[in-house]
Amino acid sequence: MTYCLGMLLDEGMVFMSDTRTNAGIDHVSTFTKMRIFEKPGERILVLLSTGNLATTQAVNDLLEEQIGAGDGKTPSLMNVTTLFRAARLVAEAQRSVYRIDAGALKEAGIDGSATFIFGGQIAGEKPRLFLIYAAGNFIEANEDTVFFQAGELKYGKPVLDRVVRPGTSLLEATKCAMVSFDSTMKSNVSVAPPLDLAIIRRDGLRVALRQRIQETDPYFLEVRKRWGEGLRSLFGSLPEMPWRIGG
Amino acid sequence: MTYCLGMLLDEGMVFMSDTRTNAGIDHVSTFTKMRIFEKPGERILVLLSTGNLATTQAVNDLLEEQIGAGDGKTPSLMNVTTLFRAARLVAEAQRSVYRIDAGALKEAGIDGSATFIFGGQIAGEKPRLFLIYAAGNFIEANEDTVFFQAGELKYGKPVLDRVVRPGTSLLEATKCAMVSFDSTMKSNVSVAPPLDLAIIRRDGLRVALRQRIQETDPYFLEVRKRWGEGLRSLFGSLPEMPWRIGG
Repeated sequence: MTYCLGMLLDEGMVFMSDTRTNAGIDHVSTFTKMRIFEKPGERILVLLSTGNLATTQAVNDLLEEQIGAGDGKTPSLMNVTTLFRAARLVAEAQRSVYRIDAGALKEAGIDGSATFIFGGQIAGEKPRLFLIYAAGNFIEANEDTVFFQAGELKYGKPVLDRVVRPGTSLLEATKCAMVSFDSTMKSNVSVAPPLDLAIIRRDGLRVALRQRIQETDPYFLEVRKRWGEGLRSLFGSLPEMPWRIGG
Repeated sequence: MTYCLGMLLDEGMVFMSDTRTNAGIDHVSTFTKMRIFEKPGERILVLLSTGNLATTQAVNDLLEEQIGAGDGKTPSLMNVTTLFRAARLVAEAQRSVYRIDAGALKEAGIDGSATFIFGGQIAGEKPRLFLIYAAGNFIEANEDTVFFQAGELKYGKPVLDRVVRPGTSLLEATKCAMVSFDSTMKSNVSVAPPLDLAIIRRDGLRVALRQRIQETDPYFLEVRKRWGEGLRSLFGSLPEMPWRIGG
């Protein structure tokens, strides 16, 4: 499994993903799930992937092939003029990988599906964020739903539900992402550091911050410690139930 | 879906379950998932069920039938002498329901599986807690793993992981259960109040507290409010990341 998160805020966008992949518990590896496609001042796109690693790598290779064509005619993430068209390219790549692999995977009893969080901004458009399902259809975030999660998403969702709003600052949203990932990693061994973080400012049209966060990162450790202590102390401050426990 | 939680602590045991069932989003109902089998001073057993409602009700009917036999020979939850034997009875009932229904359910493409949290104490034994899987095999809690969850368990797990230890008091553990359920209900509509709460004291051999907690319960609302506010304030107090966000 893996855990990916994308947030669409008034100030910009925050993306975070872990790096753990596993094909069985004795085959655990580290791979980034974050790809950035950038032409500063013109476009910035971030693609987060969850699911079958062979599928997501093949999708990425197809997308890179299109970019590499460089003939000015092949549509690619670096030349389409809207995020919608870019999301379509990801979905088409995903479907074409399925077309090739699905039969063999089904025979082997392997789930080859993949889900993507994809977003960013292309000059002339506002920032946009998509969740691309395994079937290649996708939905777009709006002010009612400002974040998308994929993969091992449930552990880290309550804290996002309580905190993240369109007006949440990039700094606060990043803190919230850190806590969401920390909670997930404490409860599920299939999600693990290092974490990849990317931040985009609205209309910045470039990566404003890209950071790999190691398990030993002092800030990560500080957030983990303070959050854990704070939760326990918040606990202590909650009122006790009014019902009497009998003998 | 549903969410059930059982905790085995030094002081005793805490059980909590929600009451929402749904067979499709236009068929949402309220059913308790908690059954208590009690002979004060001699035994107290609590059975929490998740999964297919027809299956769990049939399992319960079979268990009640055994108790109702009253011939002193039929093994039942009210006469077996160990929790292990009691858990076996639940598992056997579950398997016998599957034997009858599985074929028809498979044809209809319906998941008839059910999972149980089952625990309590029988005089002469210590308190014991089991998680009975859909296949009827089961595991027992110990001091390393003091709680079992079933159903929609991921949202509410991080807070349990951080707080619940063998030495956690019944009062603290109940608070923690309230928060765990609140987090789950905020993030998932398939889990909903009223909640059923049962508390057992070690060697009490009776229900020490049984409480149905409505959505409008003042204590529940107070915990929800203070936890939500406390989380946001804890958030505010976390340090900001040391990395600079560029333009």
